[in-house]
Amino acid sequence: MVEGETGVSIVSTQQTKHFLGLKGVSAAEITSLLDRAAYWEQHPSKVTNTLQGKFVSNLFFENSTRTRFSFELAQKRLGAGVLNFSAAESSVQKGESIYDTVRTLESMGIDAGVIRLKPTGVLQELAEKIKVPLINAGDGNNEHPTQALLDFYTMRKHFGAIKGLTVSIVGDILHSRVARSNLWGLLELGAKVKFCAPPSMQAPELAQFAPYVSFEEALQSDVVMMLRVQLERHDHGLLRSAEDYREQYGMTMERASRMASHAIIMHPAPVNRNVEIDDELVEHEKSKIFTQIAHGVPIRMAVIERALT
Amino acid sequence: MVEGETGVSIVSTQQTKHFLGLKGVSAAEITSLLDRAAYWEQHPSKVTNTLQGKFVSNLFFENSTRTRFSFELAQKRLGAGVLNFSAAESSVQKGESIYDTVRTLESMGIDAGVIRLKPTGVLQELAEKIKVPLINAGDGNNEHPTQALLDFYTMRKHFGAIKGLTVSIVGDILHSRVARSNLWGLLELGAKVKFCAPPSMQAPELAQFAPYVSFEEALQSDVVMMLRVQLERHDHGLLRSAEDYREQYGMTMERASRMASHAIIMHPAPVNRNVEIDDELVEHEKSKIFTQIAHGVPIRMAVIERALT
Amino acid sequence: MVEGETGVSIVSTQQTKHFLGLKGVSAAEITSLLDRAAYWEQHPSKVTNTLQGKFVSNLFFENSTRTRFSFELAQKRLGAGVLNFSAAESSVQKGESIYDTVRTLESMGIDAGVIRLKPTGVLQELAEKIKVPLINAGDGNNEHPTQALLDFYTMRKHFGAIKGLTVSIVGDILHSRVARSNLWGLLELGAKVKFCAPPSMQAPELAQFAPYVSFEEALQSDVVMMLRVQLERHDHGLLRSAEDYREQYGMTMERASRMASHAIIMHPAPVNRNVEIDDELVEHEKSKIFTQIAHGVPIRMAVIERALT
Repeated sequence: MVEGETGVSIVSTQQTKHFLGLKGVSAAEITSLLDRAAYWEQHPSKVTNTLQGKFVSNLFFENSTRTRFSFELAQKRLGAGVLNFSAAESSVQKGESIYDTVRTLESMGIDAGVIRLKPTGVLQELAEKIKVPLINAGDGNNEHPTQALLDFYTMRKHFGAIKGLTVSIVGDILHSRVARSNLWGLLELGAKVKFCAPPSMQAPELAQFAPYVSFEEALQSDVVMMLRVQLERHDHGLLRSAEDYREQYGMTMERASRMASHAIIMHPAPVNRNVEIDDELVEHEKSKIFTQIAHGVPIRMAVIERALT
Repeated sequence: MVEGETGVSIVSTQQTKHFLGLKGVSAAEITSLLDRAAYWEQHPSKVTNTLQGKFVSNLFFENSTRTRFSFELAQKRLGAGVLNFSAAESSVQKGESIYDTVRTLESMGIDAGVIRLKPTGVLQELAEKIKVPLINAGDGNNEHPTQALLDFYTMRKHFGAIKGLTVSIVGDILHSRVARSNLWGLLELGAKVKFCAPPSMQAPELAQFAPYVSFEEALQSDVVMMLRVQLERHDHGLLRSAEDYREQYGMTMERASRMASHAIIMHPAPVNRNVEIDDELVEHEKSKIFTQIAHGVPIRMAVIERALT
Repeated sequence: MVEGETGVSIVSTQQTKHFLGLKGVSAAEITSLLDRAAYWEQHPSKVTNTLQGKFVSNLFFENSTRTRFSFELAQKRLGAGVLNFSAAESSVQKGESIYDTVRTLESMGIDAGVIRLKPTGVLQELAEKIKVPLINAGDGNNEHPTQALLDFYTMRKHFGAIKGLTVSIVGDILHSRVARSNLWGLLELGAKVKFCAPPSMQAPELAQFAPYVSFEEALQSDVVMMLRVQLERHDHGLLRSAEDYREQYGMTMERASRMASHAIIMHPAPVNRNVEIDDELVEHEKSKIFTQIAHGVPIRMAVIERALT
């Protein structure tokens, strides 16, 4: 069991079937989820009765229409009843109110909760008190495990295997839960991970797991995963900074042309076109962005099914 | 038939199966709803086809995620199709626009509407013009009948019967529809009701039905029901007032320790922790808060079923 | 094939089963949709399994609770799974972001999208890139074809046929997609169309298809269709303007009394009572407003079914 940065364990708690993160999850378990997603991807009928009579609630204390849609499709394809909660309807943002809301829904009889929230560390505390399985749809800068799983699924489908791949993650590592979930899972699966980030976006405590390299070195990888940059988080004027960022850390057409012919570009989406990735690359043959999105639904079906059966 | 404070009858209109309030509803009818809720609480399968092919719309002109979730679960467990409308999506707040919205949905073919709204008196006017059954999910400071029913259900389950109980309701009686619905139903069921409130939160016209007593006297009751206080409604600085409020009208650990051992604490939720109720009491064994929430779903199943069958 | 005002064809693309507008759609195809709506209006059971296992997403980049409800009811009556996206949850308003959102949902596996958006011209561009059928629920000031179809359905049901009718459309023609969709369809079906609007609300490029006439002349028509006026769009003080507007371009009781006894008043709703139409006329026997709303559901069932089967 590995300790998280906040000092709390973020290992998924097997007893209660919570799915909080990939840190500490075995390669065997990850592979079993990927295999089950492959089953769902090829399943002939869109809607099944796997979870008929069960209710799953999407508790999005931090809004994300795309992620919620992906989970909602997964839930409905499994035949579950869906209840959506979004922060747009509510001002609930603090840890205590989040607990009261989740505890309320548990009392009403939901069978599982998919939860997304801003503060880091709150999800682990919730998981200790809530008895229905909780699935992490992104918590602070800690983990976003279903995103990483769909990334692994995409890599495995493209390359046949993940072991031995070199994956470089480029961008705001410091604030990225996608980077962290990918890091823990990829290391466990036998891939090599490298980071590339401006100094202000580096997470020093992760350097022991993955070296920070130049963009030139990152371009030599099998996978170059670009992260969405949120320039409003940083102390720059936005427009000037967007141009600067693209020049120094953006996947431009020119940089893409220097990647190996077998190598691919990934991005968790939504993209900032012409900031971290050039407009022409978004649907380029080297890019897997919309393929990743397509894989999100069967991955989430596998994760929800695991939590409830 | 009793006249409402606004001079309009708020008796539930039997002919159209509206469910607008508990004022004027007989003990027999209340008991029949509680009995049916008991059936649904024990029903083995979560989802039934009782209302298959029917559509129920949740028309929340005043937002309440928790109440909407409770109704939505009840509707889906009954097999109904659900359409959610929330004020977050709309600026509809005035009586005339509320009528046009409800009339529009009626024209589209919904079979029943669950409605929550801010202005007092508008629901009664709506009910005279709308032919599909309307269920009150909270209207102004008038009534919130399903909340009171789940409170009765909780009391009956704990004490075996409601007749002869003394129930004290503590807090902002003036603005509370929960207090009013509890008052009408509890009197009809043979309980004794007392109020405890600061002078600025008393409703003088209710004093003929329930005396205003000191907190010390309220603590001697079988049930002490705390109301959510909305300090922003009053002319005080918020923080200072929260502390003052707790000291004078909050259910503190110290006060709870002076209640009878068989007595219980109730609260309609959401709570303001450490304002009207101490943090440690929310999930204390004397407190029924999350039990009340759990009872909301079968109660609402019984109410919706009554409206549609 | 007729060229749109923006120079792009807005004919519905038969190959991909998009349903973008009525311009260029044949009388035979319109009639076939009206006939199918008549079937659905009389269908005994509310919910069918016509689209079981299909998912339809309502992508409302411009909010409209009423139109979304009408589509959602149509989808659920057809047995489809429904995913709702509304701009209230999102700040997506620009063409590029709209594309990314729709492309994302297409990647996730939705079978059709119902889309409503503010900018004119974006929908046509989307339809060239998106492979799942898109149904126009209102795009800029271009078209709102399902509204016009439900209007035709209402006229046909009232008069027996549309050929030979005179329909006058009164109000803000310039900004009205309802006026344009009605114009293209009515001309194709053999009706005569007239417009009546203050000079600042006229669309000069439409004058070749329908003459601008006085309100007195408009009142002699078989159908007088009033448009919702959005006075905040114009350079007037609101209250004064509302009174002025009513006096000059409102359907007052006095004007209605001068219409032929067989003639009807229509309005796409929501109405501004006592601005473009007098309060007493909204549910008057001459007025078809709530009948139009009722017809929206079977019309949309027919349109969605056409897109997906």
